[in-house]
Amino acid sequence: MADPLPSWNDGVAKTSILDFVARVTTPGGQDYVAPEKRIATFDNDGTLWSEQPYPFQIEFALDQIKALASQHPEWLDKEPFKSVLTGDVKSVLAGGVPALAELVIATHSGMTTEDFDVMARNWLAAKRHPKTNRLFTEMVFQPMLELLAYFRANGFKTFIVSGGGIEFMRAFAEITYGVPPEQVIGSSGKLQFEMRAGGPVLTKLGEIVVIDDKAEKPAAIQNHIGRRPIASFGNSDGDLEMLQWTVAGDGPRFAMLVHHTDEAREWAYDRKWAVAPLDRALDEADARHWTVADMKEDWRRIFPFDS
Amino acid sequence: MADPLPSWNDGVAKTSILDFVARVTTPGGQDYVAPEKRIATFDNDGTLWSEQPYPFQIEFALDQIKALASQHPEWLDKEPFKSVLTGDVKSVLAGGVPALAELVIATHSGMTTEDFDVMARNWLAAKRHPKTNRLFTEMVFQPMLELLAYFRANGFKTFIVSGGGIEFMRAFAEITYGVPPEQVIGSSGKLQFEMRAGGPVLTKLGEIVVIDDKAEKPAAIQNHIGRRPIASFGNSDGDLEMLQWTVAGDGPRFAMLVHHTDEAREWAYDRKWAVAPLDRALDEADARHWTVADMKEDWRRIFPFDS
Repeated sequence: MADPLPSWNDGVAKTSILDFVARVTTPGGQDYVAPEKRIATFDNDGTLWSEQPYPFQIEFALDQIKALASQHPEWLDKEPFKSVLTGDVKSVLAGGVPALAELVIATHSGMTTEDFDVMARNWLAAKRHPKTNRLFTEMVFQPMLELLAYFRANGFKTFIVSGGGIEFMRAFAEITYGVPPEQVIGSSGKLQFEMRAGGPVLTKLGEIVVIDDKAEKPAAIQNHIGRRPIASFGNSDGDLEMLQWTVAGDGPRFAMLVHHTDEAREWAYDRKWAVAPLDRALDEADARHWTVADMKEDWRRIFPFDS
Repeated sequence: MADPLPSWNDGVAKTSILDFVARVTTPGGQDYVAPEKRIATFDNDGTLWSEQPYPFQIEFALDQIKALASQHPEWLDKEPFKSVLTGDVKSVLAGGVPALAELVIATHSGMTTEDFDVMARNWLAAKRHPKTNRLFTEMVFQPMLELLAYFRANGFKTFIVSGGGIEFMRAFAEITYGVPPEQVIGSSGKLQFEMRAGGPVLTKLGEIVVIDDKAEKPAAIQNHIGRRPIASFGNSDGDLEMLQWTVAGDGPRFAMLVHHTDEAREWAYDRKWAVAPLDRALDEADARHWTVADMKEDWRRIFPFDS
């Protein structure tokens, strides 16, 4: 049989994945799990695609601020917009979550869901990463694409559960990951149904309803899926509660962290990265024997465009 | 070929269903729809099961109030609890949505999601309808069970989109309708992740987040599915916006109302029923040539237990 995970080097991580899938899919085995309960949840930023120098959706927001600036002369005198418009990304990031939330709200509301989808798709089709000069949707992890396909081939439903915007991720998740919109869970804002002359629309309002990170991930999983995953994949402390929730269920369970250890081929960072550190979750993975995919050691290829 | 809808009498409604499904599934036809876009959404109360003399989940809430009364001596002097405990359902219903919301919050919060699921399943397995003496899960519409199965057999994903509680419906939707929890969308409250000695739990808090009715239905569809349905099924004005949203998309579209016209075999009510009238939606169905399933005329059999 062909290797379902050809971009994974032989090792503990690959073996643990193959072993888990074999156990839950062997009819009559003591760890067999019925197909409808084969739910696997995946973080996105840093787990399925890169997230350096900062999560890609922030770049989208920064670009939209610039595009909208002519309609907002007041932004020239108002932070964090002023720093965006003067190209001072460092100051923007220093503003932390409140500053980023303000930029996201300003650029992700006031339009219909369909107009936003077009904006996101156009940006994703054109904008390139400053370091690799690749489209962001090319900077996905080949080993994780194989893992997604492998789980689905074994009867799993694969869901994304990410702090990223639910509608931003839906603009590429189906084509890029094979994950349909109804299996994408993310941060979301309030939507308002309006009957216009041309027909009904849903308008994105500037009110955040869910920030799908940390303890909100299990809550969002319950809200959207209504079933506890048996396998979860993450790469930061923002995924810790999702992994804890996953492994606390009965029967066979699988939790995996992607550890960014490859400065040459991707980036190397963990405990000290301010935006989304991997710290407590790494300790817990060690203590509880969760699988850790060491990018440098375990991944033969990182991006699809790598030779 | 066997008739996929044997409980439907021949007529305009049945023909319109068969015709729509044939059109969207004929490869190369001008109305062909790719399988991943075959999304169908179904209201629950009054569309998939009965809802008289009042929606069944209210009966569940009333029973839980009685079960919890000994822990809440203050309820004896406080409406709407007092009326529940003295058996005066008429006064409870007269309190309208605010009174019912108070009862639902009091009985649907304060426990973990898993404990609530057990409560709901136990109640559904035991409680019988006052008129039919049947379990509530037996009071589902045989023609709609056939329709759900027929749509799924033709590549549709079937979703419930209902004002009912999301976790209450998930306690029976998979077994009763073949709709898995991740395809059940309903009203929902805030969930809180807590790490307890025995492991993590999600606690249901007494804060309503979504009342999945009227203009909130398209918003909930967008949030959970992220794709516009091509077919929707309802039975009241609470479903009007969902049907409007569905038919306003490009390509072939299908909207259907279940009209309760059979006093002998079920109930007959529409414009004047205070709880969930079918009034504006019936006018719009007429004006826009939506399909109306007349229960008396179109349905050979109503409940699975009917001969």
